[in-house]
Amino acid sequence: MHKSLNEKCAVVGIFGRKDASNLAFFALHSLQHRGQEAAGISSGDGKKLHTIKNRGLVSRVFTEQKLETLKGSMAIGHTRYSTAGDDSILDAQPIHANYDLGQISIVHNGNLTNAEQVRKELIDSGAIFQSSMDTENLIHLIAKSEKRRLKDRIVDAIKRIEGAYSLIFLSRSKMFAVRDRFGFRPMCLGRVGSGYVVASETCAFDLIGATYIRDVEPGEMLVFEKDREPQSFKIYEPTPKHCIFEYVYFARPDSEVFGANVYKYRKNMGRELSTAKPVEADMIVPVPDGGVPAAIGYSQQSGIPYEMAIMRNHYIGRTFIEPTQKVRDLKVKMKLSPIVELIKNKRLVVVDDSIVRGTTCRRIVRMLKDAGALEVHMRISSPPTTDPCFYGVDTPDRDKLIASHMSIEQMCEYIGADSLAFLSNEALMRSVKAEGDEYCTACFTGQYIV
Amino acid sequence: MHKSLNEKCAVVGIFGRKDASNLAFFALHSLQHRGQEAAGISSGDGKKLHTIKNRGLVSRVFTEQKLETLKGSMAIGHTRYSTAGDDSILDAQPIHANYDLGQISIVHNGNLTNAEQVRKELIDSGAIFQSSMDTENLIHLIAKSEKRRLKDRIVDAIKRIEGAYSLIFLSRSKMFAVRDRFGFRPMCLGRVGSGYVVASETCAFDLIGATYIRDVEPGEMLVFEKDREPQSFKIYEPTPKHCIFEYVYFARPDSEVFGANVYKYRKNMGRELSTAKPVEADMIVPVPDGGVPAAIGYSQQSGIPYEMAIMRNHYIGRTFIEPTQKVRDLKVKMKLSPIVELIKNKRLVVVDDSIVRGTTCRRIVRMLKDAGALEVHMRISSPPTTDPCFYGVDTPDRDKLIASHMSIEQMCEYIGADSLAFLSNEALMRSVKAEGDEYCTACFTGQYIV
Amino acid sequence: MHKSLNEKCAVVGIFGRKDASNLAFFALHSLQHRGQEAAGISSGDGKKLHTIKNRGLVSRVFTEQKLETLKGSMAIGHTRYSTAGDDSILDAQPIHANYDLGQISIVHNGNLTNAEQVRKELIDSGAIFQSSMDTENLIHLIAKSEKRRLKDRIVDAIKRIEGAYSLIFLSRSKMFAVRDRFGFRPMCLGRVGSGYVVASETCAFDLIGATYIRDVEPGEMLVFEKDREPQSFKIYEPTPKHCIFEYVYFARPDSEVFGANVYKYRKNMGRELSTAKPVEADMIVPVPDGGVPAAIGYSQQSGIPYEMAIMRNHYIGRTFIEPTQKVRDLKVKMKLSPIVELIKNKRLVVVDDSIVRGTTCRRIVRMLKDAGALEVHMRISSPPTTDPCFYGVDTPDRDKLIASHMSIEQMCEYIGADSLAFLSNEALMRSVKAEGDEYCTACFTGQYIV
Amino acid sequence: MHKSLNEKCAVVGIFGRKDASNLAFFALHSLQHRGQEAAGISSGDGKKLHTIKNRGLVSRVFTEQKLETLKGSMAIGHTRYSTAGDDSILDAQPIHANYDLGQISIVHNGNLTNAEQVRKELIDSGAIFQSSMDTENLIHLIAKSEKRRLKDRIVDAIKRIEGAYSLIFLSRSKMFAVRDRFGFRPMCLGRVGSGYVVASETCAFDLIGATYIRDVEPGEMLVFEKDREPQSFKIYEPTPKHCIFEYVYFARPDSEVFGANVYKYRKNMGRELSTAKPVEADMIVPVPDGGVPAAIGYSQQSGIPYEMAIMRNHYIGRTFIEPTQKVRDLKVKMKLSPIVELIKNKRLVVVDDSIVRGTTCRRIVRMLKDAGALEVHMRISSPPTTDPCFYGVDTPDRDKLIASHMSIEQMCEYIGADSLAFLSNEALMRSVKAEGDEYCTACFTGQYIV
Repeated sequence: MHKSLNEKCAVVGIFGRKDASNLAFFALHSLQHRGQEAAGISSGDGKKLHTIKNRGLVSRVFTEQKLETLKGSMAIGHTRYSTAGDDSILDAQPIHANYDLGQISIVHNGNLTNAEQVRKELIDSGAIFQSSMDTENLIHLIAKSEKRRLKDRIVDAIKRIEGAYSLIFLSRSKMFAVRDRFGFRPMCLGRVGSGYVVASETCAFDLIGATYIRDVEPGEMLVFEKDREPQSFKIYEPTPKHCIFEYVYFARPDSEVFGANVYKYRKNMGRELSTAKPVEADMIVPVPDGGVPAAIGYSQQSGIPYEMAIMRNHYIGRTFIEPTQKVRDLKVKMKLSPIVELIKNKRLVVVDDSIVRGTTCRRIVRMLKDAGALEVHMRISSPPTTDPCFYGVDTPDRDKLIASHMSIEQMCEYIGADSLAFLSNEALMRSVKAEGDEYCTACFTGQYIV
Repeated sequence: MHKSLNEKCAVVGIFGRKDASNLAFFALHSLQHRGQEAAGISSGDGKKLHTIKNRGLVSRVFTEQKLETLKGSMAIGHTRYSTAGDDSILDAQPIHANYDLGQISIVHNGNLTNAEQVRKELIDSGAIFQSSMDTENLIHLIAKSEKRRLKDRIVDAIKRIEGAYSLIFLSRSKMFAVRDRFGFRPMCLGRVGSGYVVASETCAFDLIGATYIRDVEPGEMLVFEKDREPQSFKIYEPTPKHCIFEYVYFARPDSEVFGANVYKYRKNMGRELSTAKPVEADMIVPVPDGGVPAAIGYSQQSGIPYEMAIMRNHYIGRTFIEPTQKVRDLKVKMKLSPIVELIKNKRLVVVDDSIVRGTTCRRIVRMLKDAGALEVHMRISSPPTTDPCFYGVDTPDRDKLIASHMSIEQMCEYIGADSLAFLSNEALMRSVKAEGDEYCTACFTGQYIV
Repeated sequence: MHKSLNEKCAVVGIFGRKDASNLAFFALHSLQHRGQEAAGISSGDGKKLHTIKNRGLVSRVFTEQKLETLKGSMAIGHTRYSTAGDDSILDAQPIHANYDLGQISIVHNGNLTNAEQVRKELIDSGAIFQSSMDTENLIHLIAKSEKRRLKDRIVDAIKRIEGAYSLIFLSRSKMFAVRDRFGFRPMCLGRVGSGYVVASETCAFDLIGATYIRDVEPGEMLVFEKDREPQSFKIYEPTPKHCIFEYVYFARPDSEVFGANVYKYRKNMGRELSTAKPVEADMIVPVPDGGVPAAIGYSQQSGIPYEMAIMRNHYIGRTFIEPTQKVRDLKVKMKLSPIVELIKNKRLVVVDDSIVRGTTCRRIVRMLKDAGALEVHMRISSPPTTDPCFYGVDTPDRDKLIASHMSIEQMCEYIGADSLAFLSNEALMRSVKAEGDEYCTACFTGQYIV
Repeated sequence: MHKSLNEKCAVVGIFGRKDASNLAFFALHSLQHRGQEAAGISSGDGKKLHTIKNRGLVSRVFTEQKLETLKGSMAIGHTRYSTAGDDSILDAQPIHANYDLGQISIVHNGNLTNAEQVRKELIDSGAIFQSSMDTENLIHLIAKSEKRRLKDRIVDAIKRIEGAYSLIFLSRSKMFAVRDRFGFRPMCLGRVGSGYVVASETCAFDLIGATYIRDVEPGEMLVFEKDREPQSFKIYEPTPKHCIFEYVYFARPDSEVFGANVYKYRKNMGRELSTAKPVEADMIVPVPDGGVPAAIGYSQQSGIPYEMAIMRNHYIGRTFIEPTQKVRDLKVKMKLSPIVELIKNKRLVVVDDSIVRGTTCRRIVRMLKDAGALEVHMRISSPPTTDPCFYGVDTPDRDKLIASHMSIEQMCEYIGADSLAFLSNEALMRSVKAEGDEYCTACFTGQYIV
């Protein structure tokens, strides 16, 4: 289901390949689960940067003709989730600018927590902002730095910002990848033929034939330069606080993020959930597609059969037509359908990854009951989402988060399930093999990094 | 995966509802797995028929404004799979015509086997044909019948045609549903409020709040008339020959077709396959989405864990961009991705519903091997597809059907699997609870109905 | 101005040119003043006919790729004015059909007056009609003819129909051009390289480098066959009744129709109008673009200066936005603007080709008065349009024709002009060098051909 | 004809009207002859500015829905001619930014001559530029000004820039209109109901029911504030240097620019041309639409009849199809067609407004000769265009200007005319009632303002 919780974007950078923008295109294609509303690529040919960006799926923004104009052996790309209105094209990335050292282009995955304050300072010192994107700060900071070399200016700029940032910069002849010291958002380094790729998730590597080398380290800057190995600079000591929700929901199951496979950890969550919140039932049913791996884990641990008893409709398209006679829960029903024959008079454990507002979950429970399910036991493979995110996830206001103002019992009643259980934070940490406090769990615990 | 084997279309009819075209719209929405290339609806308001049809997804062909012009309490709809070129709009349905009794509109799911011959006879007697659709025959036959009443003319026409047909006709004031005596294609009757619905699959019922009454019988004609119960006429004695491929692949898992649930029978196929073609392995992996139910059945029977180790990418869109450097099996990789961490050094049983040309299967095996799978055992939940279909399925020429000219061993070598096994026809029949010869299995056996 | 009176279409045929569909495309491009709503081309390659048609401008219906699929050395094309709704694509031409002699495609400019009756007869004899186009009759008549050769069947069919028809047929290997015995609509023959072209107007010749040979004669059929000169057959004795409105408004000024240049005749009308309906004034102002040639003639005859005092706005596009505050006569003002400085306190003779409903004329007068014109004398270069056309012109119902129920004085008052005068029918006949009754003037005189 | 010389844009501002953005829409509609490639509007509702801009005709960029989001009683708009590539949307106007005083939006008609230098200085002081538009300079200058009030900052900024600028600024609560001291580009003030309008040309006034008050003075700044009359500030003493090409070609004939009607002056040019460069001929023929008024003047002065002997085709659309066999001068012929019957064996005076590269003129002459013209005498209603413009006109490089490297004789030979004559600069000045050196004629004389 389309969640009310969304990661905002994905980034990719290609260096040292004649077909850089072409590879960036295919990499973005694989990263669209992180944002399908807008896409853009900047390329550099040693003399000039070229940028194309627009609203829409990657495959619609770029035609062969357009890709051909993105010349050069370096390219950075971005795909974006957007809540904004019709003119949001103005907020698509990469952001490109001319400044005293020449041209620069930048893509950003994450969210700056001191953006407003930095922006105010910059504006007070005479800067103008043409978009509402945090990322615009960075170009200003780089432009205002008094250092001579871009590399040092980037460090200057980075020192001024806080929050979550997996950044890639393109200058006339170099590419820079920087990750915040907490490593909130994933970012990994790969080799593609004789060149390099940096991307939000490794699933981008497979399509372009790249091989994983390692993650970009929290606090690290990688500098890509012609005829040299990527150079590593430590801007900050790494103090990891990886976003736990990448494992819970955002990342693609086939990706390695933060050094481990997403699918496997999701299955662990399902196993832990089964152990901690068992229930007698006839089948384990995932809410597709998010709940699939945890449901498989739950099934394997509990021995209760896994059944794909809720179908997902693939041919939706956007329709604005309303049925003349109100169909209860129409929106959910246009996307999901229960297999009535399978669930009638059966006791179901329904597994989903999270509950945000509770409305979709409520509709699913109702749909299953209407279809004849005897019992519906909701099992959520993460703790209650009580607090908003400030590090790049588009969360609704706190008062829209059902878990922020309802007890589990109240939620259970609201969604109409026979029982409702969440994974505890401790169990979640076990599932992802946490060794200490290397994960940010603020959305579950309210404990933000200061 | 997009198959090289495709059911050609779906039909729906609504009678006795003020919001008939609106309901037809939502019903077609649910039937798009049977064809997404074109859609159309004719409605009747007692005086006039109104028709809108075009290429594209149901949600793109119809806007609220357009639906509003489709007035009246009866409506028939069609959604179509198409191999044709750019102007195939000319071959979309419903077909609408004026003839001596007034206006008529018709939708058809299936394929007439004597269409060419009837067409020739009609043409010889002075008829003109404006499309390449078999269905056009029917209107001519009705127009040329010497009976007075449409009902009788339809019977006359039906007596002249052979093959597979689930037909719905709309006249100024009535609706007629007819199914061939073999019941090749599914067609079911439901109640929706105070009105009726006829549709290819029951999955269309759920979204519009309809309840299943029964299947339209093979050889039966149902006549819907104002202020009367639907009247049933037996044109032929039913001699069922249901298309077995509806169970194997075409129908949606949540549908009841031929009186039974599709998902359950697919699971049975997986169970039978596991019993007959066991293999020692670490996991059962479906090819999404077609292979899922059988893989679950195989896993439950064998006790080998089920894993969703091949991901399906949902944000594809149409791209005509080719990678600058050849990526092996690009098309498959843009749609499917293996979870490398899961399958590396593992022995896999990969379950799919059928093998048609063998090319996609070969690419999937290669992709899994490239990803490190130790062994790949292909298990197909149907017998080898050796023969083309003449009853409404778009099959490639016989010489493109890999099973028509290769032994299983040869196929296994071609696709590069460690083993390859198909479900036997007997086991398939057991899976679908065949009681006699009520299924058409010509594509597996070459035994066509004469 | 977009008139409420419209010729319905244009036809073109190309024979004996390898690039036939390409030439048809460019010819249609030049004929779009006769209809911009839909366009289509059928080509024949000796084996098969290929057809593409759709709604929209010629340049949007055809891409290079599509034209390439229209293979063969013969092609016929059509461009269409349409009042119909959204699905009017179904009524675009060419109409293509299969019948007992093979394939046939047809385009038609004109209107059959006995279409309803013929249709009824055909339907009674078992024919079905899939469109609302008269033209469909012809294919049926040809299919039902008992003659062996297509040529003879066409003659048979032609004998059954009445009204206005400039027709071009395409069979597998031949092209046929037929014009009704009255020659209502224009149709001319030209040579293009080693091949031939037939088209509604000669303006189509210039762009493709063709030279005018002669008009297709009223009642004549031309047969184009490989390696032969076009053969001429006289189906009917010619009894010319050329549509006078072609000279008044429809045809392009640079075309030769009915053997004479349109611009020159329009100037004659202006001259006659000046002689018969003189008025003391400061300038002669045409309503663009229709009134330009007559205004020039009026000016040259009267000696009163010609001024282009009403501008036409070219960058309109379709907008559905309404001004928040009512702007009087907005629609006219978006298309036409007066040059205030020029007309302020001046006495104007405003020349237009015709008045149909009177609403546009009224708005123009008001606009000029609002802009400060002292006097506005409307001069119309044709007689009052009192009667509807049945020969291919889309006229409003008689009661919408202002001249059918108002005297000239009443009309003058309605449109708010200081004077209003029309060209007499006699003067019109002089303008177009009528030698007898070779023109149809039914829309001015109500004298229809029986 | 589409010229190789183009004014780059038009601006409009509406103040004090609840339907401000709606009025801006209709005003832009009337100004599209100055640029059809992109359009945009910013509105202000007292709290926030709203901006929508995109590529395409005004009627395509704005839907009713979009206009409704542009709330507030102030709005500024822009329509743009563009030579740039596919992503030029990034260079559409208005430019909108946040800076230390809040939000600002700006539209600009003209060209800054010291933009590069100012840009360099700004960049050296740490500014970043996100577009290639000169206009971006202004926001930076305003942001960096140390004055407290926006009004004073605008003055500061204006003092730093040179060149041609008709600017409109929108802040949270005010609107500012500024025109350069030379008054290069036109800009006029009008009253619309209880509000005000500022626009590039008066033709924008008519459609929205506004009345002309006066021109914005060269060097003047008008400040629009709630509940006050517009306040006038003199930034510079006016030293008019109006662009003479506005009268020659850019402005719409029905506009008043620089205080006089365009059509009348163009007619004067034709009269002067006739007096100075007479020729014995049979008719005066304009190149539509640019040459129409001068041709009328030439005809009236010479007594030689005016004939519309070259037609303009209105239904063009964009086609990328090439004729299979090369048609000489195809592009011109798709837009213009000669009336052969009229010009055959005739001596023509063909009047156009200017010759830039000479290629189009050459094609027209050839087309007329091919059509049988006995003599073609080209008469140009302006002097030879020898020098590029730096004040807002998109001129080709000097070496593409045919008059920069050819004598009139050489040009005449190149274009193939029987004679060629231009209007002298003195006669041009008489035509436009020049009283001193109030016109910029640099493109004819090379005398630029220093």
